[in-house]
Parts: sequence; C-alpha cells; structure tokens
Amino acid sequence: MDRSSDSVAGMAPTAHAEPREAGTRDRIVSAAAEGFARRGYAGTGLKAILTASHAPFGSLYHFFPGGKEELGAAAIRTSGATYRELVESFFPPGVDVVAATSEFFAAGAEMLVATEYADACPIATITLETATESEAMRIASAEVLESWLAVLQARLVEAGVEAESARDIAVELFCAVEGAFLHCRATRTTEALAAVGRASTARVADAVS
Amino acid sequence: MDRSSDSVAGMAPTAHAEPREAGTRDRIVSAAAEGFARRGYAGTGLKAILTASHAPFGSLYHFFPGGKEELGAAAIRTSGATYRELVESFFPPGVDVVAATSEFFAAGAEMLVATEYADACPIATITLETATESEAMRIASAEVLESWLAVLQARLVEAGVEAESARDIAVELFCAVEGAFLHCRATRTTEALAAVGRASTARVADAVS
Repeated sequence: MDRSSDSVAGMAPTAHAEPREAGTRDRIVSAAAEGFARRGYAGTGLKAILTASHAPFGSLYHFFPGGKEELGAAAIRTSGATYRELVESFFPPGVDVVAATSEFFAAGAEMLVATEYADACPIATITLETATESEAMRIASAEVLESWLAVLQARLVEAGVEAESARDIAVELFCAVEGAFLHCRATRTTEALAAVGRASTARVADAVS
Repeated sequence: MDRSSDSVAGMAPTAHAEPREAGTRDRIVSAAAEGFARRGYAGTGLKAILTASHAPFGSLYHFFPGGKEELGAAAIRTSGATYRELVESFFPPGVDVVAATSEFFAAGAEMLVATEYADACPIATITLETATESEAMRIASAEVLESWLAVLQARLVEAGVEAESARDIAVELFCAVEGAFLHCRATRTTEALAAVGRASTARVADAVS
C-alpha cells in the first residue's frame, strides 16, 4: 500500500507536469494576445510577454519553436476563439437577430467606454500589421474572422434569410463593427458604433421581414 | 555684372537651402508614412526611415524635436491629406454620389489586388497601434478621419441629403471601407469590398432618391 502510495506519489510530479506545462503555454499565449491586442505585434516584445506570463525564457522556444511568428498565430487563434464565444453569446441559436444586432453594437460601445477606448477588436491591429509579412499569421486571422462571420451567417439563415444574402449581411455587420472601432478609438467617441448600429439593425430587420 | 552675378551665385546655396531642408523633412515624413502604413508604427524603426529618406541621423531631431511620436503625428497628417485628395477625386463637387460610391469601393478593390493586398488605409494600422498610447497621434488620426468624412458628408448634403443623415451615412461608408480593408487583407479576397460596396451604393441611392 505504502509502496503503491509512494509510487502514485512518485508519479504525481509527472502527472502534474502536463497541466503545469499547459498552464505555462496558456499563460504565454494569453499575455501575448493581450499585448498584441493593446500595443500591436511589433510593439510587444518577447521579454515583456515572458515577464507578464511569469515564464522562463527557454519556455518560449520550447512551446513555440517557430518563435514570435508562431506565438503570434497562436495568440490570434486564442483571441479569436474567445471573441467567437462573445459573438455567440450575443447571437445564440434561436435569438431575435434584430434585437441581438442592436445589443451587440451597444455592448461594443459600452466595452470601449469601460476600457477608455483600449479594448476593441482583439486581432485587428495584429492582422493589419502582419497580413503582408506573415502567411502563418494572415491565415490565422482569416480563419478567425471567418469563424465570427459563420456565427452571424448561421443565425441569419435560421431567421429565414437566404444563404447568399446572409453571407453578405454578415460581412457588412463585421465591416461595420471593425470600421467603427477604428473611428471610435481615434475620436474617443461612440458615435460611429451608434451610427452603424442603427444602420445594421435596420439592415437585419429589413432582411428578416 | 560679374560681381552681381557672383553675388547671386553666392546666394544660391542659401536660396536653395530652404527647399533642400524642406525636401529632407518631406522625405523623412514620406518614408515614415510609407513604413507606418505597411509595417506599422512599432515595426518601422527610425534608422530604417532615415535610410529610406537618405537623411542624416541628426536631421530627425532637428525637424522633429519630439522624436518618433512627433514624426508619427506628422506622417499621419501627411498620409491623411494625400488620402483626402484621393477621396475628393472620387467625390468632387457636383458628382453623382451614387455612381461615385460604387466606383470608390471598386477602386479600393483594384488597389488591393494591384499591391497584393498591401496598400489599404494608410493610417488604420498606426491609429490602432497608438490611439491608446499617444494623444498626439490619436488626435492627428481623428482629425484625418474627420477630414475624409467631411468630404463625403458635403457631397451628400449637396445631393439633397439632410445634414444629420449625411453625417450618419458618411460614417457608415467610412466604417464599411475600413472594415472591408481588414477582411480583404486577411483573406486576400475582394469579397468584403464588393459586398459593402453594393450595400453602401444602395444606401446612398436610397438617401438621395
């Protein structure tokens, strides 16, 4: 029993090593994602990421042999998955898509005000910075954006909008949000989100009527 | 005559010095603007800017005592003025705003394809990178964005749209373009510009009818 117990205890560090390793990797990706979202890809150094994630320097290349570019793609995917959940929380299956559209834009404005216009799209900055320079990051960004569009398109189709039109409207809503985030952050006003929120809500209402 | 001629010749270097100084400053700002548009603010180093503009290192702090931040604001304003002229070339006084809207989005798509999706909005990247960090650059960005909106709004008002509605539509068109640039650059397709171009053209047609 004791030996068996010792044996189990002896395995514990190994058994715990995987969660701990995963924890380190997750912390690095989270710190990178936050930095890239707020200060951009080039503006967020590896040392700052490792410091913020309490990770030793060697762990970066252990988890990301491709270096900063591989970490960048991972951060884009992680931020993208979190934001997809946010989009899904506003647009769950069976939702009133007209009301949800209005609420989504209003919530975006609230988030901007609450963060003093710092937190908007988590991947817009890194995407614009890197789309021309890195195929790995560009593809990660494209997949993320498409995953958000897929949620909107699915809800519009469920609400009776024809598939091609639903795709167009999903693209329009996405562009409206992203462009408005840019205007809002530059002007420190929520005017653009309010304006495109009204227009987008009317567009969706027209499509489902 | 000879002396007079010599005297004029003697003045020449001084007479030419101002244009040359202005030329150096302009070259620095142009190189900075191009770098910031393509690789972002943090991704474009001062050394690279000085090398690209064939300017000595000392000239940077001579023209921009505030350093990179002051240069960033100047680059935003220069890029913004150039892009405002582009917007005005599509939306000159008396233009058919419906046709102009359609042509503007189509031209944006052509520009993206021609530059392999590198050249889109000249200040979107630097604005997203710096809006939270630098008030000087954020204000420059806001002024630039507003100068573009003013052109669109003026043409819509001239076409008979009520001022408040013209402002809203100008904001909507701006957001549509900016959001579409992001999607197009990430996906390397022109789908988003085509979709928002159709929707924006319909929106303007509806407003002026």
